[in-house]
Amino acid sequence: MSEKNLKIVLASRPTGWVEESNFRLVEEAVPAPADGEVLVRVKWLSLDPYMRGRMNEGKSYAARVELGETMVGGTVGEIASSRHPGFAVGDKVLGTQGWQRFAISSGQGLVKLPDPRLPETAWLGAAGMPGITAWMGLTQIGAPRAGETVVVSSASGAVGSVAGQLARIAGCRAVGIAGGAAKCDYVVKELGFDACVDYKAGGLDAALKSALPAGADIYFDNVGGEILDAVIRRTNPGARIALCGLIAGYNGGEIPIRNVFNLLVNRIRLQGFIVSDRMDLWPGAMKELAGHIAAGRLRYRETIAEGLEAAPRAFIGMLKGENLGKQLVRVA
Amino acid sequence: MSEKNLKIVLASRPTGWVEESNFRLVEEAVPAPADGEVLVRVKWLSLDPYMRGRMNEGKSYAARVELGETMVGGTVGEIASSRHPGFAVGDKVLGTQGWQRFAISSGQGLVKLPDPRLPETAWLGAAGMPGITAWMGLTQIGAPRAGETVVVSSASGAVGSVAGQLARIAGCRAVGIAGGAAKCDYVVKELGFDACVDYKAGGLDAALKSALPAGADIYFDNVGGEILDAVIRRTNPGARIALCGLIAGYNGGEIPIRNVFNLLVNRIRLQGFIVSDRMDLWPGAMKELAGHIAAGRLRYRETIAEGLEAAPRAFIGMLKGENLGKQLVRVA
Repeated sequence: MSEKNLKIVLASRPTGWVEESNFRLVEEAVPAPADGEVLVRVKWLSLDPYMRGRMNEGKSYAARVELGETMVGGTVGEIASSRHPGFAVGDKVLGTQGWQRFAISSGQGLVKLPDPRLPETAWLGAAGMPGITAWMGLTQIGAPRAGETVVVSSASGAVGSVAGQLARIAGCRAVGIAGGAAKCDYVVKELGFDACVDYKAGGLDAALKSALPAGADIYFDNVGGEILDAVIRRTNPGARIALCGLIAGYNGGEIPIRNVFNLLVNRIRLQGFIVSDRMDLWPGAMKELAGHIAAGRLRYRETIAEGLEAAPRAFIGMLKGENLGKQLVRVA
Repeated sequence: MSEKNLKIVLASRPTGWVEESNFRLVEEAVPAPADGEVLVRVKWLSLDPYMRGRMNEGKSYAARVELGETMVGGTVGEIASSRHPGFAVGDKVLGTQGWQRFAISSGQGLVKLPDPRLPETAWLGAAGMPGITAWMGLTQIGAPRAGETVVVSSASGAVGSVAGQLARIAGCRAVGIAGGAAKCDYVVKELGFDACVDYKAGGLDAALKSALPAGADIYFDNVGGEILDAVIRRTNPGARIALCGLIAGYNGGEIPIRNVFNLLVNRIRLQGFIVSDRMDLWPGAMKELAGHIAAGRLRYRETIAEGLEAAPRAFIGMLKGENLGKQLVRVA
């Protein structure tokens, strides 16, 4: 093959905001599969907030990326050559090939796209890890009952958008929190949330109060910090909070929970969770999500960056909230 | 009757520490029961931290005491006169007659002492509300498995002492946190905890680390604040935190949780609870606790103040941690 492999490695660890200089583009020969292996040509790379944690020195819930190593990430690709009996050239596969054009795989963790009704990219978004994350936090921690009110932060994002729509499907009132009027418009008009609070507009407390006439029974939190405290103020007795992400603190600032008394007085259950802890639940969740998408009940949007070289800038933009919906990179 | 009734009413709401001037002693005639009622002569009054919350203006998990109203509280008493078919003069009853010598009751919420093997005061402590609180937080939220490590703050108190002993009975390692060497001695030598950390000795982080070689799987928290954060630092993945009390913040100071990242990274379940939410679980819990006490497996100590007039000072002392074990007032 005359084609070159391109990959993006971690060049240095960020202090505060991620910068493009934290990454380095590396060119090398395309590797050849050994017996029992396949070569995957990456078509789509998923960019997700958890990757920020992997760039840090400290302990996170998964192994950090070492300096000089290829950045991790979920991908949809195509088998470019195969010496594995389970995969044929041209098979479309979901995997974790990371920020690169080509990758060798033993086949482990590689799944053929399960449902031809869905676009390829859905498996990196609403029907994939982000969607399953939403499903897991909402159903396993939130356990919504019809008529309850569910609040979702980062409501226009890949996870939050699914969490709110699943809440609606469960018969709940869904109230989103998002940054900016355009995102809030999208959340209400396109995703069908009952209301959306623009946290950038100021007056968060008053806006939440008016959007939550019956209080909050479930909070699906992707951000932490002051927004978490503001929602805790509006919780009803017996409320559940699924702690999914803490974007507000990803750059190292402290994001304390101040309304600790409300946690006690309102008997709140607050639970952190990691979607990869319960791989046993993934197949059922994917099937359910794919069914909702195919039936038009679960909608999503994508922001697509063109070419692997664009991944660092797109990733930084996503952390700053510049994207709408699922952030992807078209690699090939 | 020539005897007078004495009662202690809320005279003013505290700002910061409770003071004796927040209470007022009132003398009045002993009331006479109407048809269907009984007159209870209070023998023992229980003093508990939750009463601090009832003295505040703001919303708590139960109705506040209004100015001029008799302070609420659990009691053991004796039927002094009866016009109720279910109670005879001399019956010993557990109830909530509050800070007073005599009280009229319709019989609702009045329970004859269930098990003659136990001393009367046990029903206000290890076999009563504090013991049930320990049982509920440990079994319903902590859900201990043999071999796990359970940390308990206020370990020498009425609730914490039971929580740690129940953890031991469940096959767990029990590590207490208490203020002062005397309390820690009591926790380890008399109550049988595996270790106890004296938070007043300084070096809390290091002491916790050395007392928790295998980390913490369950934290039964009665205090909140810095101690809660210090224990969160030592939690294992999947840890459960039962938020039972927040003594550190009862006087109005802010007690934020700062280690929010650990809640997420370690998938911690943190849950506030109120023992009165699950009255359906009380009979079973009382039976289990009484069985442990009768068999000598569950030990406790009491600090007894003499006479109703001593209640305010004893209550303030309890909030400052001056008592050891269950704080009671001998009213008659």
